[in-house]
Amino acid sequence: MSYEEVLIEGRNAVIEALRSGRPIDKLYILDGCQDGPISTIKREARKTDAIIKFVDKERLDQLSTTGHHQGVIAQSAAYEYADVDDILKKAEEKDEAPFIFLLDNIVDPHNLGAIIRTANLCGAHGVIIPKNRAVGLTATVARTSAGALNYTPVARVTNLARTIEDLKKKGLWFVCADMDGEVMYKQNLTGPIGLVIGAEGEGVSRLVKEKCDYVASIPMNGDIDSLNASVAAGVLAYEIVRQRINERG
Amino acid sequence: MSYEEVLIEGRNAVIEALRSGRPIDKLYILDGCQDGPISTIKREARKTDAIIKFVDKERLDQLSTTGHHQGVIAQSAAYEYADVDDILKKAEEKDEAPFIFLLDNIVDPHNLGAIIRTANLCGAHGVIIPKNRAVGLTATVARTSAGALNYTPVARVTNLARTIEDLKKKGLWFVCADMDGEVMYKQNLTGPIGLVIGAEGEGVSRLVKEKCDYVASIPMNGDIDSLNASVAAGVLAYEIVRQRINERG
Repeated sequence: MSYEEVLIEGRNAVIEALRSGRPIDKLYILDGCQDGPISTIKREARKTDAIIKFVDKERLDQLSTTGHHQGVIAQSAAYEYADVDDILKKAEEKDEAPFIFLLDNIVDPHNLGAIIRTANLCGAHGVIIPKNRAVGLTATVARTSAGALNYTPVARVTNLARTIEDLKKKGLWFVCADMDGEVMYKQNLTGPIGLVIGAEGEGVSRLVKEKCDYVASIPMNGDIDSLNASVAAGVLAYEIVRQRINERG
Repeated sequence: MSYEEVLIEGRNAVIEALRSGRPIDKLYILDGCQDGPISTIKREARKTDAIIKFVDKERLDQLSTTGHHQGVIAQSAAYEYADVDDILKKAEEKDEAPFIFLLDNIVDPHNLGAIIRTANLCGAHGVIIPKNRAVGLTATVARTSAGALNYTPVARVTNLARTIEDLKKKGLWFVCADMDGEVMYKQNLTGPIGLVIGAEGEGVSRLVKEKCDYVASIPMNGDIDSLNASVAAGVLAYEIVRQRINERG
């Protein structure tokens, strides 16, 4: 398995990558470019998960490693994304109540990698990340996950709030980490659960937070504002683990 | 307060820095150099905490930012180190049982910074790190600590095992994080406590582990080996916080 993040450059190469179903994170297209092949690329890309960015020639030249981008560069994921259903299936196979991490716009690849590592070790069945405004499964994420990406499925969704709604219909409860919540030790975090972790600095976005059943806080006895996002995710995840162990007796 | 990591280059500058009591992390001296000023530097440095490294000219040239190292470069800490007594005094001032982090050879500055951040927020009174084979308070550590270095004292000791012995005489118990320990939820982690966290990959060294009263493990339900060191520190620290809160009722 390769940890490389791959750039695919040039019209034919990008069309071929899209048609073969290769997962594309981002597609950089020369702004204003309207010819046939570029239209085909845009049409094909809209059938997939790719984020399309229209950029100027300077930006493309800067990104290009081959020097022959022909107005289009695709950035391919280092790993394949899973579906949300793959994550639920994993819980079912293990005969366990689903335990899923949902990350609301984590942008630091080291944090994303460390969180996937934690998700693996605390027994979570998968991680859900949003398509926009968040880091994808890049080479750095793969490396800092310390191999966890080989085992823990990561799904990417368009709208985290909608995914939470869908999963609620399947019986999951959602707990969101935020400072204004009740202390986590006092909440019942057993059963099928989704743990929602907010972005570094900003926390969980309002729309996502409103969908959550509980808001849980980590007790803070210090002088500064907040824990590192991957540390906060670990602390909350292991409170869930503790409560699950307790429940089993 | 500056987050800069400072290199001091040249004989006079280094002698002056040493004599003024400025904290020096590492001193790079041209191997084989035996003249008067260099002997003075070595003598002064041995009175301090500085680690002396004898290196070849190529390494000095590589490190140098001014190009005028004259065979000696000192690396100064971005922050001043505290004493172990400063940490105990902080606990006393707050009228709390001491709660100290001891880090056995953490080498990644991002991990050290995140751990100091966690120490601050979980209400620990300070962090103790060893002088050798570990990262010091560099600019990266300061940045990733998110300001915690301004509040949480960090002491640097020559021999972590001996420091543990000294602190035991002052009533502290030591718990060391390791996979072969009993699950942390089942151990009594209240009272005056030192939490010992091992290096990334290697864990806690044998000599340090032998001095600890308990070995506590984090339950692992995954496919890979270990949590990120800063996540592990956070999970254990918050189990201590939980037990302290419980005890107060």
